[in-house]
Amino acid sequence: MRVEIVAVGTELLLGQIADTNSKWLGEQLALAGVDSHFHQAVGDNHRRIVLALRTALARGDGVITCGGLGPTHDDITRQSIAEVMNVPLERDPQIVARIAELFASRGRAMPESNERQADVPHGATPIPQQLGTAPGLLCPVGNKVVYALPGVPYEMQEMFTRAVLPDLRRRQGEAGETGVIVSRVVKTWGMSESGLGEVLAKRIAALDEAGGNPTLALLASGIEGIKVRLTAKAADASAAAALLQAEEAHVRAAVGEAVFGTDDETMESAVSTLLRAQTKTLALAESVTGGLIAARLVNVPGASSWFRGAVVAYDSRIKHSILAVPEGPVVSEAAARAMAEGARNVLEADVGLAITGVAGPEDQDGQRPGTVFVGLALEEGSEAVELHLPGDRERVRQYSAISALDILRRRLLGVRA
Amino acid sequence: MRVEIVAVGTELLLGQIADTNSKWLGEQLALAGVDSHFHQAVGDNHRRIVLALRTALARGDGVITCGGLGPTHDDITRQSIAEVMNVPLERDPQIVARIAELFASRGRAMPESNERQADVPHGATPIPQQLGTAPGLLCPVGNKVVYALPGVPYEMQEMFTRAVLPDLRRRQGEAGETGVIVSRVVKTWGMSESGLGEVLAKRIAALDEAGGNPTLALLASGIEGIKVRLTAKAADASAAAALLQAEEAHVRAAVGEAVFGTDDETMESAVSTLLRAQTKTLALAESVTGGLIAARLVNVPGASSWFRGAVVAYDSRIKHSILAVPEGPVVSEAAARAMAEGARNVLEADVGLAITGVAGPEDQDGQRPGTVFVGLALEEGSEAVELHLPGDRERVRQYSAISALDILRRRLLGVRA
Repeated sequence: MRVEIVAVGTELLLGQIADTNSKWLGEQLALAGVDSHFHQAVGDNHRRIVLALRTALARGDGVITCGGLGPTHDDITRQSIAEVMNVPLERDPQIVARIAELFASRGRAMPESNERQADVPHGATPIPQQLGTAPGLLCPVGNKVVYALPGVPYEMQEMFTRAVLPDLRRRQGEAGETGVIVSRVVKTWGMSESGLGEVLAKRIAALDEAGGNPTLALLASGIEGIKVRLTAKAADASAAAALLQAEEAHVRAAVGEAVFGTDDETMESAVSTLLRAQTKTLALAESVTGGLIAARLVNVPGASSWFRGAVVAYDSRIKHSILAVPEGPVVSEAAARAMAEGARNVLEADVGLAITGVAGPEDQDGQRPGTVFVGLALEEGSEAVELHLPGDRERVRQYSAISALDILRRRLLGVRA
Repeated sequence: MRVEIVAVGTELLLGQIADTNSKWLGEQLALAGVDSHFHQAVGDNHRRIVLALRTALARGDGVITCGGLGPTHDDITRQSIAEVMNVPLERDPQIVARIAELFASRGRAMPESNERQADVPHGATPIPQQLGTAPGLLCPVGNKVVYALPGVPYEMQEMFTRAVLPDLRRRQGEAGETGVIVSRVVKTWGMSESGLGEVLAKRIAALDEAGGNPTLALLASGIEGIKVRLTAKAADASAAAALLQAEEAHVRAAVGEAVFGTDDETMESAVSTLLRAQTKTLALAESVTGGLIAARLVNVPGASSWFRGAVVAYDSRIKHSILAVPEGPVVSEAAARAMAEGARNVLEADVGLAITGVAGPEDQDGQRPGTVFVGLALEEGSEAVELHLPGDRERVRQYSAISALDILRRRLLGVRA
């Protein structure tokens, strides 16, 4: 199967938004073993969308379009596909009813323009929406196919996974294409890309020599650390999973506690797992990160069983008044410890985690931007770690947040940072 | 002039890296008044690059390629262009000497593979490199043109600005094309895409009738609201700015206070501007958003002059103990008001903003997921607003955060939400 991605939207051509949909779809198709030799982007123009679709169908077996399914007069992907199929558009009353219902559930009347979202090219099958108003379309063109997906990323992703991928798999099966390619990502924090490369160099060479299955590759992902991507080819998913399982054990043995999770696991979910296992509750005192750590923690399902809350002491006076930090410089090891103790006491938790520092651009308390102190308070006492982080305000904040969580993670693991 | 961008690199198709080059080039071409109706991405495969180039030349006046000019056997853009031009590649000894010199200046010998970077299709003009080793190419194809640029973003950008843009301008002049295209984005919150479309329908029709300059288009951007893009063509930048200025006034008059900013302005910067103008300080009490609002606010430069801090009361007991919320259901209008008053008192601010609600998936205090109460406490008293928001936990949180900031913004503007 060769499938071309056609992203629709003038804003893509004008560089006003980045085409993250094609990147995501490219990755998913590769994982599914579907070839994608070309991507195109095209504006909201009927003649050009038709040309892009015909070009794509001429050089592949199928096309996935993203965007142009909204209710406005700019949204013309439906019409363009109908022209390529050489069929009329037909309004589907069931879809109209579903969209009207959605508006009603939010206490609003459906604007008439939304009825256009119920237009379906004759012979196409609508893909029901589960998150927004625009249904997708599955459109046969001879023995080829056009899938039309909405441009809103999370709607597109949900619809691809639920409806497009199974249809592609079925077509692969009919074409006698078998085998799967499966990847797993091992996530690390605290090692440089080159440091991790050195630790894994021998293993990567050994895998190459043995035929390159599985393979290992390093992916720098900025503020979320360095990832190691393991990719295995096998006859079926369970055989691939077995290869990945064995390889993950090799990587973990080589890299050690810098590994904090795999795939969808995050630094905060790693912390959550440890806190739950030790039946400890957590409270935060945030200054430089301004609520960023709390906002990450509450995204972990079940956080309410161990997360008490946070005091965001952005104004220094709050450090003294609520957290009982003694007067003196607030960007210091002593202040970080006092903040952690204050959070632990005031919010009545087993563990207090605190962070104070300088995001910049100006110095504060004689400390340079990027200087950050992480404080930890536990039943047995308190401690603090000094960090020096690179980047502008936003990056210092992001690095501070994940660094503080990593310090807590290692402490809960019984490892000194 | 219609110029197509062709990004070369298998890693783009596999979704391993994002195609930021096409976005940047799209923006630059639009600013230069050059039409770009299509973008393509293609892998490191000779036959397919040739096909992509022929497709692009057939539907435009020129092509800009990015990538595939490196020294490895994967870098085959030069050969592919030579085939499209139907000419041989010739090695340029001056370029070989320049690359060798560059290596020598870093104290290294030039690997033989780098000599390939000196290959130039017969009849093409090399564009000297100033930052790396790969020269670019300016390749006439009949009366059309292919510009080949390296894939490294900063090398590509420098070379585009220095060599490609002036050549495009010269071609535009020969074709009698002059002028610039400039865009501005007006950001709104609180209206649906279709509702906004109806409010603006007359104006869009009037602009269309008047010749379509400027133009208006709606862009849904998910949790950050709906944007209205204004695009103006004019002889020069200041004439375009004047058109945009006048059109922005039309849009603001039609849409009203749902407009919260333009271009880089955010909901939090709008709130910041109002608080500073009114010399008021702000404190937060966050429950369902878990610190998300605070994390947004501290990203506004100068937030320390008006943002006191936040109490993230994720555990209900903290609402009672620190914020002095009376016992009773914590997802309620009364609790939201009490939280706002508590934050205002405990954190000693002029304005208290509070949010409590149910992110889901389970009900809480008899309320459904997506039910959110926003409380506001000011010197003159407190109030609360009930919201019903769609989506999963993460989206309910994100919508809650921007909705709460919008309620504060409208209140500071003197408008009831």
